Amino acid sequence: MPRLVMKRAQRKVGLAPGTLVHVGEKKIEKARIRIIDYNETQLEEKEAKTVEECFPFKDKPTITWINIDGVHDLEAVEKIGKHFDLHPLILEDIVNTQQRPKLEDFGNYIFVVLKMLYYDEEKNELEAEQVSLIFGSNFVISFQERVGHIFEPLRERIRKGKGRVRKSGADYLAYALIDSIVDNYFVILEQLGEVIEDTEQELATNPAQETLQSIRVFKKEIIFLRKSVWPLRELVNSLERGESSLINESTGIYLRDVFDHTIQIIDTVESYRDMLSGMLDVYLSSISNKMNEVMKVLTIFAAIFIPLTFIAGLYGMNFKFMPELEWYWGYFAALGFMAFVGISLVIYFRRKKWL
Amino acid sequence: MPRLVMKRAQRKVGLAPGTLVHVGEKKIEKARIRIIDYNETQLEEKEAKTVEECFPFKDKPTITWINIDGVHDLEAVEKIGKHFDLHPLILEDIVNTQQRPKLEDFGNYIFVVLKMLYYDEEKNELEAEQVSLIFGSNFVISFQERVGHIFEPLRERIRKGKGRVRKSGADYLAYALIDSIVDNYFVILEQLGEVIEDTEQELATNPAQETLQSIRVFKKEIIFLRKSVWPLRELVNSLERGESSLINESTGIYLRDVFDHTIQIIDTVESYRDMLSGMLDVYLSSISNKMNEVMKVLTIFAAIFIPLTFIAGLYGMNFKFMPELEWYWGYFAALGFMAFVGISLVIYFRRKKWL
Amino acid sequence: MPRLVMKRAQRKVGLAPGTLVHVGEKKIEKARIRIIDYNETQLEEKEAKTVEECFPFKDKPTITWINIDGVHDLEAVEKIGKHFDLHPLILEDIVNTQQRPKLEDFGNYIFVVLKMLYYDEEKNELEAEQVSLIFGSNFVISFQERVGHIFEPLRERIRKGKGRVRKSGADYLAYALIDSIVDNYFVILEQLGEVIEDTEQELATNPAQETLQSIRVFKKEIIFLRKSVWPLRELVNSLERGESSLINESTGIYLRDVFDHTIQIIDTVESYRDMLSGMLDVYLSSISNKMNEVMKVLTIFAAIFIPLTFIAGLYGMNFKFMPELEWYWGYFAALGFMAFVGISLVIYFRRKKWL
Amino acid sequence: MPRLVMKRAQRKVGLAPGTLVHVGEKKIEKARIRIIDYNETQLEEKEAKTVEECFPFKDKPTITWINIDGVHDLEAVEKIGKHFDLHPLILEDIVNTQQRPKLEDFGNYIFVVLKMLYYDEEKNELEAEQVSLIFGSNFVISFQERVGHIFEPLRERIRKGKGRVRKSGADYLAYALIDSIVDNYFVILEQLGEVIEDTEQELATNPAQETLQSIRVFKKEIIFLRKSVWPLRELVNSLERGESSLINESTGIYLRDVFDHTIQIIDTVESYRDMLSGMLDVYLSSISNKMNEVMKVLTIFAAIFIPLTFIAGLYGMNFKFMPELEWYWGYFAALGFMAFVGISLVIYFRRKKWL
Amino acid sequence: MPRLVMKRAQRKVGLAPGTLVHVGEKKIEKARIRIIDYNETQLEEKEAKTVEECFPFKDKPTITWINIDGVHDLEAVEKIGKHFDLHPLILEDIVNTQQRPKLEDFGNYIFVVLKMLYYDEEKNELEAEQVSLIFGSNFVISFQERVGHIFEPLRERIRKGKGRVRKSGADYLAYALIDSIVDNYFVILEQLGEVIEDTEQELATNPAQETLQSIRVFKKEIIFLRKSVWPLRELVNSLERGESSLINESTGIYLRDVFDHTIQIIDTVESYRDMLSGMLDVYLSSISNKMNEVMKVLTIFAAIFIPLTFIAGLYGMNFKFMPELEWYWGYFAALGFMAFVGISLVIYFRRKKWL
Repeated sequence: MPRLVMKRAQRKVGLAPGTLVHVGEKKIEKARIRIIDYNETQLEEKEAKTVEECFPFKDKPTITWINIDGVHDLEAVEKIGKHFDLHPLILEDIVNTQQRPKLEDFGNYIFVVLKMLYYDEEKNELEAEQVSLIFGSNFVISFQERVGHIFEPLRERIRKGKGRVRKSGADYLAYALIDSIVDNYFVILEQLGEVIEDTEQELATNPAQETLQSIRVFKKEIIFLRKSVWPLRELVNSLERGESSLINESTGIYLRDVFDHTIQIIDTVESYRDMLSGMLDVYLSSISNKMNEVMKVLTIFAAIFIPLTFIAGLYGMNFKFMPELEWYWGYFAALGFMAFVGISLVIYFRRKKWL
Repeated sequence: MPRLVMKRAQRKVGLAPGTLVHVGEKKIEKARIRIIDYNETQLEEKEAKTVEECFPFKDKPTITWINIDGVHDLEAVEKIGKHFDLHPLILEDIVNTQQRPKLEDFGNYIFVVLKMLYYDEEKNELEAEQVSLIFGSNFVISFQERVGHIFEPLRERIRKGKGRVRKSGADYLAYALIDSIVDNYFVILEQLGEVIEDTEQELATNPAQETLQSIRVFKKEIIFLRKSVWPLRELVNSLERGESSLINESTGIYLRDVFDHTIQIIDTVESYRDMLSGMLDVYLSSISNKMNEVMKVLTIFAAIFIPLTFIAGLYGMNFKFMPELEWYWGYFAALGFMAFVGISLVIYFRRKKWL
Repeated sequence: MPRLVMKRAQRKVGLAPGTLVHVGEKKIEKARIRIIDYNETQLEEKEAKTVEECFPFKDKPTITWINIDGVHDLEAVEKIGKHFDLHPLILEDIVNTQQRPKLEDFGNYIFVVLKMLYYDEEKNELEAEQVSLIFGSNFVISFQERVGHIFEPLRERIRKGKGRVRKSGADYLAYALIDSIVDNYFVILEQLGEVIEDTEQELATNPAQETLQSIRVFKKEIIFLRKSVWPLRELVNSLERGESSLINESTGIYLRDVFDHTIQIIDTVESYRDMLSGMLDVYLSSISNKMNEVMKVLTIFAAIFIPLTFIAGLYGMNFKFMPELEWYWGYFAALGFMAFVGISLVIYFRRKKWL
Repeated sequence: MPRLVMKRAQRKVGLAPGTLVHVGEKKIEKARIRIIDYNETQLEEKEAKTVEECFPFKDKPTITWINIDGVHDLEAVEKIGKHFDLHPLILEDIVNTQQRPKLEDFGNYIFVVLKMLYYDEEKNELEAEQVSLIFGSNFVISFQERVGHIFEPLRERIRKGKGRVRKSGADYLAYALIDSIVDNYFVILEQLGEVIEDTEQELATNPAQETLQSIRVFKKEIIFLRKSVWPLRELVNSLERGESSLINESTGIYLRDVFDHTIQIIDTVESYRDMLSGMLDVYLSSISNKMNEVMKVLTIFAAIFIPLTFIAGLYGMNFKFMPELEWYWGYFAALGFMAFVGISLVIYFRRKKWL
Repeated sequence: MPRLVMKRAQRKVGLAPGTLVHVGEKKIEKARIRIIDYNETQLEEKEAKTVEECFPFKDKPTITWINIDGVHDLEAVEKIGKHFDLHPLILEDIVNTQQRPKLEDFGNYIFVVLKMLYYDEEKNELEAEQVSLIFGSNFVISFQERVGHIFEPLRERIRKGKGRVRKSGADYLAYALIDSIVDNYFVILEQLGEVIEDTEQELATNPAQETLQSIRVFKKEIIFLRKSVWPLRELVNSLERGESSLINESTGIYLRDVFDHTIQIIDTVESYRDMLSGMLDVYLSSISNKMNEVMKVLTIFAAIFIPLTFIAGLYGMNFKFMPELEWYWGYFAALGFMAFVGISLVIYFRRKKWL
């Protein structure tokens, strides 16, 4: 599960602002750099071995998408930053994977931080990864923590020239990347939603200590989701308002579509939250209902035998003169009386709906 | 019940924006297209067999209302979209029935998404359907998921030329459609309100495990209602503010009336929510009161017999010299003493109000 | 109690907007129309038998207050509407008594909907009635559901020429009517507050199932009060901002005074709500404290007798060689020992503060 | 404790606005009027026997502070109102001591209502008093419900000419009065905070029914404090924004200081509220922990004796052929076995950490 | 732990505004004054013995950082205030360590109050200290309550000329000081987060009375953290908006970075709060689960022995004619029957999952 609690912050304290320190888990061994350069008619795709291979693309008029998987390679990040003239604080944010989603407009380029989410169905856990995008008039640079498959369909669309992407600018490519990430949230929500519904079903029928544990995990995941999704709304909205000259008007309507999606996602996350908020109560009431059931049956059990034992005790007294003891049928009469008392009590309890 | 949890989102991920994919349940077999074309003096009504039959109406000066039941017919939606020059993202929203209510103004036409609600009294469940409206200066196109009866009175009013509708433009027709849907919310709220009040009554008198289940269902329905109703407010408000040239000023006051209705609906939904929020507590306290009652009676029962059994045990001891045992009336004295102790305890417990 | 749940909405659905349908309880048999016409020097007061009697007053320069008790008389409402040139949607709102408080400015007249509250001390229930006001430059028309006494002191002030009312215009009269209603809220709050405080007192000392019932009723009443009072604030505020030419500046300061009162009322309602929110918890803890007390005493009771019964059981065993049984004082020694054990336990439990 | 519930509102209903009616407790017998008139060089101080003695000061260029203790003297209030040309609604607010803190700017004078708080350490109760201030260019009139000591240090500072007060205008004097009241809030918060902390300590160690009572009282006091303090913020802020020509710019910074203090006070009140909100839960869990402890020990107690009693019962059976009964050491063996069983159970329960 | 409850406020009440009174704990014996004076090429560092040593730096064009540890030295504070021409209210705020974080712009200098936090790992307690900054065009004066180590890395960076600090103005130095404090919050959050997570783990597995105590302490610490962090956001934001001419545009982007950090910190604090809010519930349910477990086992224990004791009691009756008693194998048959009943019950309870 993604961390709610910050880790390794201490490493950074006291350093000058702009100093690059990788904060987060190292998810792959070696950074992988992939370049796609295209316009409406041409397409060049290659995997760069060194960062320097990206540099010539900067000044080409074609759209260039540089994708770097693995942000722990501080040297690579720094070189790119220097070549593309990025502000040191941006680089610091890229390698510190505990950012919250945000957007910063630096005039000739825009910097966007997003959270990409995965749902590990085996561990029933949410996983998060930070994706940073920088886009200018003719380039998009994307940083991921590891090699993912979410951008694959987009890459395919570029290769095949499907849709608007080859005909549009870098802003549309940036939009398409953000859209891929946001679309993936729906998948996550669907998976999470199913697990929550299953758990809810289980809660009512068969509450167990583990269910409580699940609720706690869900609660943390919802907290995490909210932290990822709410700033997204603000982010996409400020892109859509189109204050930057980097964004064409025709892309605006697509960004509005993404904005609608983020609101839908927020709505769903809040629904899940509402659903969860009642689950602990249902769990506790289920548990206590079950317990009460047990206690009630046992108590009734005892309540039936206590008078019977008393009667038996009565005839166990050693008084000299106890007429009943002398009767020939006394013993059987006593047994019969006990049976009568016992059965009467059972009937009484049943009628009271206690049994 | 309408889904809080998203389904089938995965089918869509990775597709280019604007690709039509039907998301939702397929509620009728074949799409049904009905056309009403009218002005103050004329009226033409027909059921189209093919989408193409709608096309000629586009350029007629009369008001045309095209109603399509069944949004899963992607081809029909696409053809209409092309002919009426609608943005691909709109078409995508029409066929994806998991939209939240929203309004988008494209200048020469306005696109509105609404949720139409039904209350299935047999299953005690809320049902939802997505209605999309597109209206320009002389046409209204409405998309529904299935053939419904909510627009029937409006259709009748158009046929008979009652009210303002025949004298007004497409904006008034669009208003009338929205008004029909919003008015229907009152019916839903009334039905739901009655069921909630009944359940509340039941809660206090006869709490059962099923009542708890009902509360959970209500809670989800309220969550769903809020998701449908809150955006409605914003939607109607932005229509009413009259920023679009498509909306005549005289229609504005009618939209304000709808706006008042949506606020009233929101108020009522929030009241229901407040009522529900306390119901779980009442349920739990009812259950625990009942349980306590049982336990108390049983414990008192035991408490009366325990001393009696002790006395019986006393005279069951085998000591050689126990003077009472030799007495002729010993046994009856013991019985009497026991009766005295038992009755005293009953009186004592009664006086303490425990029994 | 006023309804939180909407009723009879179904009757209205599908009708053209502006169609008059009375929604609500019919509270009096026949509508009663009272007219007061005055200026600083003159006063004419009469009870009209037909609606038409009001009509001549419209064009008189004097201030006319037409008060109609009984909004179910649709014909009368419609006639007045036609004569005073009121918008059909206003008439619809007047006869539908489930409106929320609101204000609508139509330029040459202002329409205000308010809730008048009564506290039925016998049934301990809040009652609500809808009051609609329409005022122009020289007339005020007020609609009530039944004949009430709240406007009586105002009527008296007009008759006697006390205060500013005879010297001021229709706006001041409208203010005075609103002020009467708002002032009455204080009385309601005082009555309700006393009942809540009494209940709270009872809760701590003597919690009963009925108290729980009372809390639920209070909760609903508070929900209803909030629904009536919050929109009032907005309403009075927009009157006070003085955007309408119908309101003289000198009336503004009086409206500000009403505004202060509505805020005070809201404050008080919110305080009540806070007080109520904790009451269920106090109730539950009181109940469970009482229960625990009972259970504890009974359990201790059992705990004292259990060892005694064991000792008795011990000497009830039939072993051949049990030396104690042969002792002459054995029985009395056993009794003594039991007494010792019992008293020791009582002392022990007392010292532990369990008894 | 100050009332959350309104009282005596009924007396006022139906009166013309501006009619003076004293609402609140009469806290002193006779109104006391004290006048201080000063400028940088002169100082005149006197106690007026009649209201009329204040009148000459109105037209003097020096700063005059008229302090009236006792607002139930309606005649005095009315005379001052007439002489200083105050709006009748202001006078109404002064004598109705259930106002919420507010500020009204009448152009040539400003009217301020505040709540002065006392903490009665003996009764552990919060007491409130309404203070009304009216200040113009050269006078400040303050109304209090009774003779207090909070303004005494300020009076002393004026007499001795310490600080800025003698050199500044009426606005600074008004500021100094408000500052005295706000400063006093800190004292109240400190006292209240200590009592709350003590109670919290007690809760965890020794929960009693009275503690529950204290929590309820605190809760009401916090509700009251919030009602007094939140509007204060708005009030001081609108003074500080300096929109009135009556307030010199140099006083602005002092008002900002007061504003900071009110925010600090609000912060602290909210902290107290958060602390309180958990206290009921802690109380309930403490109570139930204690109860559970008792029940557990008693149940274990029973659980140990039940098997022993069974064994004794076994050898109390009257079968003809029970070999053990004939053994010489049978009785002692049985006693030993019982001891063994009892001790084993004790050890077992201890190991399970139940005992 | 820092105080939520105010202390020693009383000392201040009634004094003229601007009077210096030290409010707070005296954390070091003697104030310590350190001066660093630098520009891009020069550096002078010294520890001043008297306040007067600082004065000459005021008029030097170089950047001067005067750091005073120990605000209880009122005389020193006053002298500096007089020399640097600071407003008396600022001095009052510096020596009163119960300020909330705030910013005040006095035109030629800006005054900032912050809370520096420490986490005492031994006592598991949060400690707070007030830091006041005043910066003008060429000087920064910082006041701390005691000698801390948080500014040490910054001091080192100035000495070594690393980073931008030596090349920038007083605004950058002020930024760097604020940044040091904010960065340190991350460390605190990390430490606190770990302790909270540990406690949460413990809660589920081994709830104890002390855990409850910890939750209460955490809750207070979170309340305190929120009080320190939320105003920080506003503070940094108003610095960043760059309305003051004292702040260079190039520093703006660094302030935005600090702003992002404060939002991240707020996010994390709110996450912790959400986590905590559920912990008490989990604790209570853990406790009650454990208790229930014990009670259940014991009750079942009793339920098994009660019928057995009854059977034994049966054959302890003294009836003359009880055929079973005469049977040779009667005793053993009875024992066998008891064993059968006991084992059956155990199996039954196991099957019901009660055992």
